[in-house]
Amino acid sequence: MKKSLGSNTLLFPTPVLLVGTYDREGKPNLMTAAWGGICNSQPPCIAVSLRKATYSHDAIMERKAFTIGIPSEDQVDAADYVGMASGRNGDKFAVTGLTPRKSELVDAPYAEEIPFILECRLLHTLDIGPHTQFVGEIVDVKADASVLSEDGRPDILKLKPLVYDTAHQGYYGIGQFVGKAFSVGKKLK
Amino acid sequence: MKKSLGSNTLLFPTPVLLVGTYDREGKPNLMTAAWGGICNSQPPCIAVSLRKATYSHDAIMERKAFTIGIPSEDQVDAADYVGMASGRNGDKFAVTGLTPRKSELVDAPYAEEIPFILECRLLHTLDIGPHTQFVGEIVDVKADASVLSEDGRPDILKLKPLVYDTAHQGYYGIGQFVGKAFSVGKKLK
Repeated sequence: MKKSLGSNTLLFPTPVLLVGTYDREGKPNLMTAAWGGICNSQPPCIAVSLRKATYSHDAIMERKAFTIGIPSEDQVDAADYVGMASGRNGDKFAVTGLTPRKSELVDAPYAEEIPFILECRLLHTLDIGPHTQFVGEIVDVKADASVLSEDGRPDILKLKPLVYDTAHQGYYGIGQFVGKAFSVGKKLK
Repeated sequence: MKKSLGSNTLLFPTPVLLVGTYDREGKPNLMTAAWGGICNSQPPCIAVSLRKATYSHDAIMERKAFTIGIPSEDQVDAADYVGMASGRNGDKFAVTGLTPRKSELVDAPYAEEIPFILECRLLHTLDIGPHTQFVGEIVDVKADASVLSEDGRPDILKLKPLVYDTAHQGYYGIGQFVGKAFSVGKKLK
């Protein structure tokens, strides 16, 4: 018998997404979001939901572009900070010591030190209550060589992405390998 | 200098979501999806994207409801299997030994043995290329007592949700605690 926990925004795992934007004056900004995920294959798209009250929300509306950065475990302090402060009141790049770099493909910046970046062009917005869901076409994925496997694709154990715990507001790392997809289930066939 | 990996659906981490549906005849079905996430606070909503070609896609269109189950590490074989087989050709509950239970709140089933369940009423569909993004209002969250903390909320280390690796198609567990959110970043202020 399961216990009812009510109508709640609980999900496991959720990602730690650093959303990069330029405001109207061209000031670069970063904010943290845990509510998002891939949402289409062709074109590759990602959805990320931001509260309408955030500074980044208006920046995406204005510039029709954003980046998504995936920080590593050792960048947790900066990832947490940019989720607490507002770009209205200061320069989060300066405070965290991260270096803003202008994307050559979309009208948005990313942090040079963040090892994995998606550059996104706004395709669609969905207005749902206090949040807007932004669907962005992933125009390019960029990664540091240090987080790539020999096959040239990202290595999750080198990238060390953070997992956000929606129930107790904590950050976790990636754990042990559990099994190969499209493979471990074959024994049930 | 970052390396360009092209326009791709790479993100870390992504979840392992078991989407529960009834087809037109009332047969329960489960399928695995990694493309989804929370997308609104009031009402609590989750977005999940399914290829239009899937059996589950048509079932959600028909019934306007679905459930999302979060399997534990030790359920990886079943989670992988229901992502490979189609409900068109067989009964995935029977093959995996999972027990379908009808939600009392929405017109969709979930697997009794899966420890964490979201019951969702379809609110919105977004047609993007080969995928449809389904936005569901989370009407209730249900969890086994075995995955709850003393405070009554889910304990991520008891739930042991799977992480899906989009680059190398593997499943991982949750790793070590890295830091407290809205806290570790304060040292940068």
